[in-house]
Amino acid sequence: MRNDFSFVLASASAQRERPRQRRTATTPHGKPAHPAAAPFPSAASTRPQTDHVRIIPLGGLGEVGRNMMVLEYAGDIIIVDVGFGFPDEDMPGIDFLIPNVKYLEDKRDRIRGVLVTHGHYDHIGALPYLVEKLGNPPIWTAPLTRGMLLKRHEEFPRLPKLEIHQIKAGDKVVLGNFQVEFFHVNHSIPDDLGLAITTPVGLMIHTSDFKLDLTPLNEKPADIATLTALGKRGVLLLMSDSTGAEVEGHSISETAVQQNLEAVFQNTAGRIIVATFSSMLNRIQQLVSLSEQYGRKVIVEGFSMKANVAIAKELGYLKAQKGTFTTAREAKNYPAGRLTILCTGAQGEDNAVLMRFVNKEHRDLAIEKGDTVIFSSSVIPGNERSVQALKDNLYRQGAKVYQSADLGLHTSGHARREDQREIMRLLKPKFFMPIHGMYSMMFNHAELAEEIGIPKQNILIAENGEVVALARDKLIKLKERVPANYVMVDGLGVGDVGNVVLRDRQVMAQDGMVVTIAVVDSETGKVRGEPDIISRGFIYMKDSRDLMNLMRRKVKEIVARSTGHEKPINWAYVKDNIRDKLGQFLFTKTQRRPMVLPVIIEV
Amino acid sequence: MRNDFSFVLASASAQRERPRQRRTATTPHGKPAHPAAAPFPSAASTRPQTDHVRIIPLGGLGEVGRNMMVLEYAGDIIIVDVGFGFPDEDMPGIDFLIPNVKYLEDKRDRIRGVLVTHGHYDHIGALPYLVEKLGNPPIWTAPLTRGMLLKRHEEFPRLPKLEIHQIKAGDKVVLGNFQVEFFHVNHSIPDDLGLAITTPVGLMIHTSDFKLDLTPLNEKPADIATLTALGKRGVLLLMSDSTGAEVEGHSISETAVQQNLEAVFQNTAGRIIVATFSSMLNRIQQLVSLSEQYGRKVIVEGFSMKANVAIAKELGYLKAQKGTFTTAREAKNYPAGRLTILCTGAQGEDNAVLMRFVNKEHRDLAIEKGDTVIFSSSVIPGNERSVQALKDNLYRQGAKVYQSADLGLHTSGHARREDQREIMRLLKPKFFMPIHGMYSMMFNHAELAEEIGIPKQNILIAENGEVVALARDKLIKLKERVPANYVMVDGLGVGDVGNVVLRDRQVMAQDGMVVTIAVVDSETGKVRGEPDIISRGFIYMKDSRDLMNLMRRKVKEIVARSTGHEKPINWAYVKDNIRDKLGQFLFTKTQRRPMVLPVIIEV
Repeated sequence: MRNDFSFVLASASAQRERPRQRRTATTPHGKPAHPAAAPFPSAASTRPQTDHVRIIPLGGLGEVGRNMMVLEYAGDIIIVDVGFGFPDEDMPGIDFLIPNVKYLEDKRDRIRGVLVTHGHYDHIGALPYLVEKLGNPPIWTAPLTRGMLLKRHEEFPRLPKLEIHQIKAGDKVVLGNFQVEFFHVNHSIPDDLGLAITTPVGLMIHTSDFKLDLTPLNEKPADIATLTALGKRGVLLLMSDSTGAEVEGHSISETAVQQNLEAVFQNTAGRIIVATFSSMLNRIQQLVSLSEQYGRKVIVEGFSMKANVAIAKELGYLKAQKGTFTTAREAKNYPAGRLTILCTGAQGEDNAVLMRFVNKEHRDLAIEKGDTVIFSSSVIPGNERSVQALKDNLYRQGAKVYQSADLGLHTSGHARREDQREIMRLLKPKFFMPIHGMYSMMFNHAELAEEIGIPKQNILIAENGEVVALARDKLIKLKERVPANYVMVDGLGVGDVGNVVLRDRQVMAQDGMVVTIAVVDSETGKVRGEPDIISRGFIYMKDSRDLMNLMRRKVKEIVARSTGHEKPINWAYVKDNIRDKLGQFLFTKTQRRPMVLPVIIEV
Repeated sequence: MRNDFSFVLASASAQRERPRQRRTATTPHGKPAHPAAAPFPSAASTRPQTDHVRIIPLGGLGEVGRNMMVLEYAGDIIIVDVGFGFPDEDMPGIDFLIPNVKYLEDKRDRIRGVLVTHGHYDHIGALPYLVEKLGNPPIWTAPLTRGMLLKRHEEFPRLPKLEIHQIKAGDKVVLGNFQVEFFHVNHSIPDDLGLAITTPVGLMIHTSDFKLDLTPLNEKPADIATLTALGKRGVLLLMSDSTGAEVEGHSISETAVQQNLEAVFQNTAGRIIVATFSSMLNRIQQLVSLSEQYGRKVIVEGFSMKANVAIAKELGYLKAQKGTFTTAREAKNYPAGRLTILCTGAQGEDNAVLMRFVNKEHRDLAIEKGDTVIFSSSVIPGNERSVQALKDNLYRQGAKVYQSADLGLHTSGHARREDQREIMRLLKPKFFMPIHGMYSMMFNHAELAEEIGIPKQNILIAENGEVVALARDKLIKLKERVPANYVMVDGLGVGDVGNVVLRDRQVMAQDGMVVTIAVVDSETGKVRGEPDIISRGFIYMKDSRDLMNLMRRKVKEIVARSTGHEKPINWAYVKDNIRDKLGQFLFTKTQRRPMVLPVIIEV
């Protein structure tokens, strides 16, 4: 259907947020020269490369989330997604992780555009933190994603206005040497777009997060025709979502999930409470429709879910009859069997709505005997214990709990192995690079590609910060590396929490800390009076008078011994001694290693 | 086969560790009077109850692990298991959790014995910490469990010698009013024993952790005959393992696992490295036998696994040909295809052997390209991320990874729903009480019992610290509660880390801490010189000079303002002010809430 590959001006279908002059992003671009294969230039080379596209993942490879990829050709740069990720357990206090964009800092004027595939936070969430560093480049994305970007941007009033060009599946835009065509893919949110990127070296496909659903709900089925057509055109490189690469079979269709959810609606007399992610708009639509069908009013609770539902309704992505929605405050006016409550908190998060229902911290709603609670989302690794604790408390309060895993009440938005095989068969790529997923997922995805018949030497597993070169006849890693470490966001601080701060947090979390304050006479080198000891997280001070006294005596001894050596007194040496010797003493006594912080006041 | 219910003296089959005088545990006990149903006496009652058995779970109900149960009748107490559990994520620095035995403190002389069902740490691990508090009561257990108890006890040289009576399936012991008969059950370790406890009110069954395996390896199949016979005798109460109550079907037989493992051995040319729990002795036996069959030498690495293998070999529970085992240091003398390495670390633990192989921290062995690594254990909830990180690093180093979940390379030691139904059908209990498992597992187990036909009012879900009364005609919860909170073990401290210390650790882990040290002139109420600021885990001090200066100025201001009000200066008030106002100031500046610790030195 789209066999001739003629690009139109993106502006034809784009709605510009504000006029821009400085970029040539929307100017049609003449065919660039295709020089014969030459050795790939090094990073230090001043001549822009023209025989290969540089592919630089800044996030999302070897992890789930924080997706961001840079594509570079002859002075032009495009970026796919700017997402955030969630911190690991050994990063206490960190809110989230964003990509390091240092590599792009001196290349802002070469950024032709940011392509945002869909509205999930692991694809859009880092934008507010990075948009200025990137020079506020133009963004190309679908209407719902645009709505979600703008909504989130409202939370950052000091940032410049975004320049968002609205496009849809089938649209084509020219961004310097990159000619981008958007195609529809299925996922757990509407308006997810795969990217077919024609470059001077050949056609690259970026699948975005995707699954092949031939019977989805509320959106078009997988666009097999376009995938087939792309395959016929000749795909040089396929970069495909690896998240489901360790699960055999086809992903479960939304239709199957719908049937399972319907069975619950049919058999439930009391309230139905469904916890899911706030951005699972396809699931939310299903639940709204089922509620209408079974005569239930719908209450949406949770700041982010309310916001997303509002955007989706406004843009026509969420269809509901007039009067379907009601509010938590009105709940008491309806019998239990006439209510569906959609809320956040399926991961057992402390402050989310479901937890507040359980802890009776919600103004209008609490769990009641006879409630049916459905967890309609996968459990993010690391959240298993908090989800279990929440589930237990729901049971204790007399609710019936359905977890998605048991009963097909949720399906992942990611292609499983059979879908991954299928898209490779349709696209017939020469080269293959697994993206989006833990290393083990990418590894298994790469093995799958080999099994499908792509030669091993044409398959490349890259990681964040590696620089991949794609030429017509090869796909290789360059020696060059760009910074791609986690940048940590903690409160208002972006990137200020580094390894030192984090390590200190870990040490204090494990065994607490001890501050010793000694007033030392710089003449005699002796402690005046008794040293002060403050301890937190180490021992319960009130129950440990003996140990506290021993510590005071120890500090006096150490000071007396360490000040004897030289005049003037080497205070750094004295402090080091307190830290080491008191530390050893405490370990012997308790087998704990609190952080020891010696303070000396000279008088 | 054992239809006449005559108890023999336990000492007939027991090996005593040392002579004891003070207890009557092994004296045959005459049939006690069965008084007519009277109101259950309250805890304060001085008359010992004789119309009901008191069942007091101190751990293991509403959690996985930390199993310990107290049974009490007319002045006699017996205890089933003394296990530990692992801390939750919000308990940083804690090594493990043990039961609170305060309830038993003034009842030591009534403890007739401790029955230890099997050798897993969640059933034996707390004993060293509690044995003295319990008055070192006699222990009744099977030979392998005895070996493991004694081995572990060696790590605590200051403790008194244990009195362990060795028994086997089929043996019977009389412990005051309790007449205990041990029967064989299958699990992931040999010598697991279920308990049939005849009491004056009726027969109680405690299944221990169990599964029904009709084709196990290296041990007898499920003892259906004994279960049937017990059912015929009339079971008053069944207390059954709930861990598998949320998984449909039969548990997978060890024979099926064996076949899947064998397929790996058949198809692997390089080294096979299997990570599992150190106490999974049945799995270890399988792997030893397969290695012999396929001409591989076996290396066992990991302190606890080596110890368990040594005990099991010595006691004849692990059978191996001469020359099967070799050492890590000898590994280089064998080709890769001739080696199997069994090790700990399947949970991604930092210091376990597999992690040391990956991090090249092991003296003799490291992961090599071509290695096949099998994770043969379930992932304990909460460990998913560390296991994933380990798996990724194994793939990065060129190993092939098999995870048990994918391929049936492991099976749980716990009965699934179909087995749970089966044991209820065989035992036909009048009353049912789910034990061992999270609340949701116990809840689903209770529903299963109802489905099988046990009347709802005869089913009781109890939690740790609740007191359950079992009479001939009822099973109810008493109002009474006994302390059953987590007792935390941290280094040498047992129970000294409480909520205050833990909360401080959490606060410092989240946002770090700030110590302000001000030398204040008690005459003028002003700070002399500049206050010292020490911060850890909050901001990186070297990069935050401006904020540090602002903090110093803030402290001076707060002190000056707070000392003006009264004479003599109220130092507590000054400190509170620093804590509050500096805390607010820092939150405004950073959106972080470090712990603020004000120190004032009066001069």
